[in-house]
Amino acid sequence: MRRPLALALAVLLGAPAAAVAAGKPTTLRADDIATAERLRDQALRDDTAWNFTEGLTTEVGARLAGGENDLKAREWTIAKFKALGFDKVWSEPVTFPKWVRRSESGAIVSPHPQPLALIALGNSPGTPTGGLEAEVVAFDSFDALQAADEASVRGRIVFVNAPMQAHRDGHDYGIGSRVRSRGPSLASQKGAAGFLLRSAGTDHNRLPHTGVTAFAEGVKPIPAAALSVPDAEQLARVLARGKPVTVRLALDCGMDGEYAGANVIAELTGRREPDEYFIMGGHLDSWDVGTGAVDDAAGIGIAVGAAKLIAALPERPARSIRVVAFANEESGLFGGKALAAKYADKIGNAVLGSESDAGADRIWKITASVKPEARGAIDQIAALLAPLGVEYDAAAPGHGGSDLSEMHRVGMAALSLYQDATRYFDWHHTENDTLDKVDPEQLRQNVAVYVVAAYLAAQAEGDFGSAPGAFARKAP
Amino acid sequence: MRRPLALALAVLLGAPAAAVAAGKPTTLRADDIATAERLRDQALRDDTAWNFTEGLTTEVGARLAGGENDLKAREWTIAKFKALGFDKVWSEPVTFPKWVRRSESGAIVSPHPQPLALIALGNSPGTPTGGLEAEVVAFDSFDALQAADEASVRGRIVFVNAPMQAHRDGHDYGIGSRVRSRGPSLASQKGAAGFLLRSAGTDHNRLPHTGVTAFAEGVKPIPAAALSVPDAEQLARVLARGKPVTVRLALDCGMDGEYAGANVIAELTGRREPDEYFIMGGHLDSWDVGTGAVDDAAGIGIAVGAAKLIAALPERPARSIRVVAFANEESGLFGGKALAAKYADKIGNAVLGSESDAGADRIWKITASVKPEARGAIDQIAALLAPLGVEYDAAAPGHGGSDLSEMHRVGMAALSLYQDATRYFDWHHTENDTLDKVDPEQLRQNVAVYVVAAYLAAQAEGDFGSAPGAFARKAP
Repeated sequence: MRRPLALALAVLLGAPAAAVAAGKPTTLRADDIATAERLRDQALRDDTAWNFTEGLTTEVGARLAGGENDLKAREWTIAKFKALGFDKVWSEPVTFPKWVRRSESGAIVSPHPQPLALIALGNSPGTPTGGLEAEVVAFDSFDALQAADEASVRGRIVFVNAPMQAHRDGHDYGIGSRVRSRGPSLASQKGAAGFLLRSAGTDHNRLPHTGVTAFAEGVKPIPAAALSVPDAEQLARVLARGKPVTVRLALDCGMDGEYAGANVIAELTGRREPDEYFIMGGHLDSWDVGTGAVDDAAGIGIAVGAAKLIAALPERPARSIRVVAFANEESGLFGGKALAAKYADKIGNAVLGSESDAGADRIWKITASVKPEARGAIDQIAALLAPLGVEYDAAAPGHGGSDLSEMHRVGMAALSLYQDATRYFDWHHTENDTLDKVDPEQLRQNVAVYVVAAYLAAQAEGDFGSAPGAFARKAP
Repeated sequence: MRRPLALALAVLLGAPAAAVAAGKPTTLRADDIATAERLRDQALRDDTAWNFTEGLTTEVGARLAGGENDLKAREWTIAKFKALGFDKVWSEPVTFPKWVRRSESGAIVSPHPQPLALIALGNSPGTPTGGLEAEVVAFDSFDALQAADEASVRGRIVFVNAPMQAHRDGHDYGIGSRVRSRGPSLASQKGAAGFLLRSAGTDHNRLPHTGVTAFAEGVKPIPAAALSVPDAEQLARVLARGKPVTVRLALDCGMDGEYAGANVIAELTGRREPDEYFIMGGHLDSWDVGTGAVDDAAGIGIAVGAAKLIAALPERPARSIRVVAFANEESGLFGGKALAAKYADKIGNAVLGSESDAGADRIWKITASVKPEARGAIDQIAALLAPLGVEYDAAAPGHGGSDLSEMHRVGMAALSLYQDATRYFDWHHTENDTLDKVDPEQLRQNVAVYVVAAYLAAQAEGDFGSAPGAFARKAP
């Protein structure tokens, strides 16, 4: 997961529940509901998702987009999809600018010399040979940096020390991701020589959180890195002593041409309407630290687990089920954008979708953006999820998750299946994103939620409102 | 803290409570008890310990024995002791073999190539240029390695994967420290080329736990490192797939001559018996990762905090109070051994002592090894500590803590003030040993305990039984 889409879109989109139902209602048959209930309960005893997640993180490990494991991960996933018995498995090209990390280090040079645990941000350029050494100027928020005059920033290393607290809905990531994604560009515009942030994380481990940053057009990219939370607090303590503080950064990283990657897609082909599909998945890339377990091997694993249970039914559902392992979500939803571009003109076939990309802890809420005539079907799906502890907010929109938000943007009806993010930002984009952070029981609960939604969407009589522009942003 | 002394000594020493009181009882005066009570309550509002801990970890940082911060830390401490108003501040030489770490890395080479987060153990030699590459042979305990035949080990990298659980008394450290301190020597005796252990820690962070190892006389030192817990579990998963697993280790580290360090000692000089003293402290060295906050800046801070409160009384106590910042505890109690060697023939002057070296969380138990005639005074001290949540086990021995166990060994009466170690082994000997792990409120509780013990021992009428050989190991 890269950015707080839930929040952004909740603001941008009107609540579809406010619209008026005019056409024929979308309905679910009683025997399909009974089947969905059985699938849900089977999911709570099934380890397909765990096995996928364990396999990908153990046998491939970290999967930086465009890095040496990018192709290896796709080959692994294709082989696994085939072995799991999907009807079709294919790849669709996704190209993107490649960023590489070679090494990084940093230190307080004076007045109290000591190493700093830091990590370069994706898209950061490297420092000059020998490193960058400059005085630090600190801000406690993005807004404070925005308000700063250029004279205080020019030639310095800007340090933004904005803390995040853990919440179930992860909303403080809005604070950290804003500093990370937009802070370096803003600092550069004011003449800064380099940029440091307190990691966008809720832990106190000396494992800094990487993640992508972006420089606005025409702005000179400057070296940008995240300090671990303890290191940010240490730097703040040194600064609080009132003497000028000099820091040295040595980042060896940067852009390195284009890379031809791919989304990997698996399908259970529908027996009646094969061109129409429910779509789910996660992203196959990860940051180069950790093994990309909660971000986002588990997301693909959950979708695979749900699809596998449906595949074991006596017959295929009416519509198809598609599972996507997206390319390069981390640097900017490249896989999601490529998918949306390819399917935009037939977006009506994507009847409903949701991507899992906020870890592997239990789903606690469902929301949906669907046509008014399909609201009753969503109500029924939500009722089946209630025993799993899933709340239902019928008034709030769904957005489809990170990459699939791009499909939603071009008109796909979308669910949001909110995972408990309380622990997620302890590990997100760090070396700590490893398999031991995945709780098998909570993972199974995720599969149970997805299998209900996927099966009933694939069996529903009537659609959910997917159509070009169907959920476009309304004028305020 | 280096080794589970509490456990070892609890076994070795008889319970002194079983002995018979024959002489004049050691007594505490009512007004001294009232003063101790006031000091205790003041301690709960005093931040001297925090300020010491914050200052040392922020302005000096990591303090590897013999490293570049060794002298700097002593100079910082001497200046701080003087500024705090101790009557005397001095250093006493401690020499020890110096070990240096330059760099380290490791990776699974096949069948699933990936980096491993590991850290060399203190006293480990480096690997040959280009690194050491060998097949891994795994054991789940020290005993399993001990039982292994040489043919299965020869030429291989031994991997011992023995998990630890968190407990208030930290007793599982007995498992991990045994593997770490004795495993490499045992593996070398069986012909192993290298050694890896699952970190002696209770966390799941990719921050491996260093610590000292020792090679028995005549045994060839082999490269030895600790994997982080997630990496140990990852290696175990790769091994569980049943194919031969090759690992590469590249450790650049090793012994580098002798170093002339020192214990730093501060004294409040007693007004009536200046040569007699209560002794407390912590060790000034730390591992080179982290900033040595819980291990063991806080230990010295607690002693300093207690002494400072006593210094603020209208007059000095009858006996002296000594605070010791020990040299090189981590590689083998060098500071403690030097102190004991120097004062062994006048050990009777060290009336009672206790070192703080298990973090900064609250003290939950007091035990003591004292002469029978002093048991009543200990009972009274324990009664004053009960409101702080401190349990009292009158039947169990005290051992004085890590370095001061050496003073106890030569005859000093000793307390054990057990800190809650539930969280300690999450951070111990890792990059995560930083100031944010110190809870100011629990730290103050420690000071409250120490100030009561220190003041009353310094004021007691009669001694606690310190004498050459007084607490020597009894024949079974």
